[in-house]
Amino acid sequence: MHSHTIERWKVFELSLDGPAAGNPFTDVTFSAQFKYRNRVLEPDGFYDGEGVYRIRLMPDMPGVWTYVTKSNHPELDGHTGEFTCTEASPENHGPVRVRNTYHFAYADGTPYRQIGTTCYAWVHQGDILEEQTLATLKDTPFNKMRMCVFPKHYIYNANEPVHYPFERDQAGQNDLTRFDLLFFRHFERRVEQLDELGIEADIILFHPYDRWGFATMPAEVDDCYLRYTVARLAAYRNVWWSLANEYDLMRAKSMADWDRFFRIIQERDPYQHLRSIHNCYQFYDHNKPWVTHCSVQHSDLEQVAKWRDLYRKPVIVDECGYEGNIEKHWGNLSAQEMVRRFWLGTVHGGYVGHGETYLHPEDILWWSKGSQLHGQSVPRIAFLRSILEQGPVDGLDPMTTIYPNASGREGKYYLIYYGLHQPAEQTLELPGGPYRIDIIDTWEMTITPLERFFEDKSQIQLPGKPDIAVRIQKA
Amino acid sequence: MHSHTIERWKVFELSLDGPAAGNPFTDVTFSAQFKYRNRVLEPDGFYDGEGVYRIRLMPDMPGVWTYVTKSNHPELDGHTGEFTCTEASPENHGPVRVRNTYHFAYADGTPYRQIGTTCYAWVHQGDILEEQTLATLKDTPFNKMRMCVFPKHYIYNANEPVHYPFERDQAGQNDLTRFDLLFFRHFERRVEQLDELGIEADIILFHPYDRWGFATMPAEVDDCYLRYTVARLAAYRNVWWSLANEYDLMRAKSMADWDRFFRIIQERDPYQHLRSIHNCYQFYDHNKPWVTHCSVQHSDLEQVAKWRDLYRKPVIVDECGYEGNIEKHWGNLSAQEMVRRFWLGTVHGGYVGHGETYLHPEDILWWSKGSQLHGQSVPRIAFLRSILEQGPVDGLDPMTTIYPNASGREGKYYLIYYGLHQPAEQTLELPGGPYRIDIIDTWEMTITPLERFFEDKSQIQLPGKPDIAVRIQKA
Repeated sequence: MHSHTIERWKVFELSLDGPAAGNPFTDVTFSAQFKYRNRVLEPDGFYDGEGVYRIRLMPDMPGVWTYVTKSNHPELDGHTGEFTCTEASPENHGPVRVRNTYHFAYADGTPYRQIGTTCYAWVHQGDILEEQTLATLKDTPFNKMRMCVFPKHYIYNANEPVHYPFERDQAGQNDLTRFDLLFFRHFERRVEQLDELGIEADIILFHPYDRWGFATMPAEVDDCYLRYTVARLAAYRNVWWSLANEYDLMRAKSMADWDRFFRIIQERDPYQHLRSIHNCYQFYDHNKPWVTHCSVQHSDLEQVAKWRDLYRKPVIVDECGYEGNIEKHWGNLSAQEMVRRFWLGTVHGGYVGHGETYLHPEDILWWSKGSQLHGQSVPRIAFLRSILEQGPVDGLDPMTTIYPNASGREGKYYLIYYGLHQPAEQTLELPGGPYRIDIIDTWEMTITPLERFFEDKSQIQLPGKPDIAVRIQKA
Repeated sequence: MHSHTIERWKVFELSLDGPAAGNPFTDVTFSAQFKYRNRVLEPDGFYDGEGVYRIRLMPDMPGVWTYVTKSNHPELDGHTGEFTCTEASPENHGPVRVRNTYHFAYADGTPYRQIGTTCYAWVHQGDILEEQTLATLKDTPFNKMRMCVFPKHYIYNANEPVHYPFERDQAGQNDLTRFDLLFFRHFERRVEQLDELGIEADIILFHPYDRWGFATMPAEVDDCYLRYTVARLAAYRNVWWSLANEYDLMRAKSMADWDRFFRIIQERDPYQHLRSIHNCYQFYDHNKPWVTHCSVQHSDLEQVAKWRDLYRKPVIVDECGYEGNIEKHWGNLSAQEMVRRFWLGTVHGGYVGHGETYLHPEDILWWSKGSQLHGQSVPRIAFLRSILEQGPVDGLDPMTTIYPNASGREGKYYLIYYGLHQPAEQTLELPGGPYRIDIIDTWEMTITPLERFFEDKSQIQLPGKPDIAVRIQKA
């Protein structure tokens, strides 16, 4: 499949026939050098079964690109060609990058305000549930999905996956030297479908909830799996690499393993997609240079500003508890509390992740299997997203001088959030006005503008009930 | 006034005539030795104006007590006498002491479960408001009042006090060598009236909110003031000594000052009433031997168990925020959140304090001036008190093995609190049953017993909404 034109930040794919004998996954090396003027990208190719080898590129500059393949096998070595990269279509903004130290933007400069959700094992549930998940996502505010490559073994997760990442024999033994191609084709199709919905795929490469042996593979297999996964997936613009869910619960891995995994991805991913690692208790040292942003599990969103200061990177609290009613402490927040945590994380200068864990007669809980949402927080999270989208393109930084829970851009925009507090009045001192002020009811989803402009210092009246925010914008 | 019989833990008072010339407050020393068998108590006396000197004793053993006075002035020296201490009447339980390391009991062994409130300056508001405060307190669950000796200068507190602790000239200059007797008689009458309502008086000896000079007196005056206050008030059984409200905001005092103040009180108070010191930000070192319990300002009640472990003393979070609607972050909690904080502190093995700060057209806010209550938390706090009174006499210790927010006594009694969490089920593993289980709605104030007894391990159903607690009692 030699496309001669390809849109910027879409996937150019080259297929070549090569050897099928032996073990092509381990015996054959295959890559290509892609060039646009003085820019060179050199992705790895991968074996895709039945003697077919593929290599994928996400061209990031419009213009004519040339390539030449490299392999230890003559059939695959030295192929050359060229293609034209065209301008991106309007809805294609490219991959997400860090911008302004603590924030994100797409490659074309469009701000990206992370509003995440989590369905750890949604790609392992079969087509009916998986398509239902995609249909549900279409009507949500979520622009990032945390999802595992490996299937999940845990409470409410007793089912077997449809596909396994490695070939298996009749007895269910994994052949850790051979990847299952149906598995990976299926997985990357789901990643692509998320992209069609404008959702970044935060791909969780390892996790501890395992009964198949994927959490305890030998180091060579781990490394080979990472290289193969990067080779297949890195060209998808919506890919983020999450080294692990709860890395600190994976007893078989050492800190040196995690560092090595990061470096493998850093070396193999030509596009330098975002990289993070998610904790259960103990944070990984997010100051390490290969970490692009903090992926945090913590219930206290008021600490976000502290972590920003500590790591000088964007902070995403991917897991702050989930709306639901299961007995696990992390899975039984009220919808109100889930929404409060989104707002708190926001006004401390960070980004927050959603999850939902309502008991279900067939154990279909959104947080792991996707399917449908049953809670009340999502419309309020969508309301928050709409407010963020009307906000400053450079993102919100903590503004504690005006209130403990406030963020914004000095002299231009302020968002104050009161949460469980219910002041009936607020004195504000804001030079550089006039400002327009809106009273926001974060639960009822109303925005009520104050009639008069605000100048310098005065007191405004507030509803005196919980879950109120105030938005202040330079008039 | 020579009473010849006095009830145990009530105030025996001896009055003698002495010198009125010079400065009796500073020139005359006066004390007495009181003896019951081999027990000796030696309180200081005090000058009460117009040549009258008084000395007060709270006898703590029934039987015949004798005394002999001591003074540097012959008129007051060497007076002897005796009186009979009778058994306490049923409603008189004596002073409150620490019991079981983390808890409190009255001297007669009756458990004391602290349910405090705060009206810092209520004794400075004049009789109409003050009597209204007493009338309000009669119908509340509160058994401790935090109250300042010195008047308060702060937002909503612009008024002058009715009385001042020192004599003043026409220009409003304090004579720091002469106490104002009307002030102290009035103050101790209010302490007595609290006792009549079963309320402990947590007397705050210093505080930073001052425009009269009481926060910045010379060390000799501070010390003299402490000795005089102890001499007048220590014989009241419901007295607790709080060295300060927000000691760390008092710039004029050093840590050595606070240590000295503690030692003065420790030396001068024959009854060793409870002693504590309250922080704004930085805790005093509650491990110091003169601190009987931790008096804490903090909004995170989930830290109580940690402080218990650190100081091995009872923890009272006197100030965790107040129900109200003022713009100060500490004074605009919803009633729901105030109630949650009481429950959270309780299930982490501590005790909590209430306050109320609703805006008022005449600036009469309960937290400072008393008068009337306008909120919704107090009936729920009363409901909690009734639950505690039905609970184990030895107090509640953290029981995190059964749930993160749970306390009780092993094998006998457990109280689990879910707060903002809303599980629909809970698995419990409790050997040593059978147990009776009640589902408690902490906001609706309902107690719903489960129909069957609970044994060993099983799952109970819960309402799946916030603000629920579970009580488990050995059947």
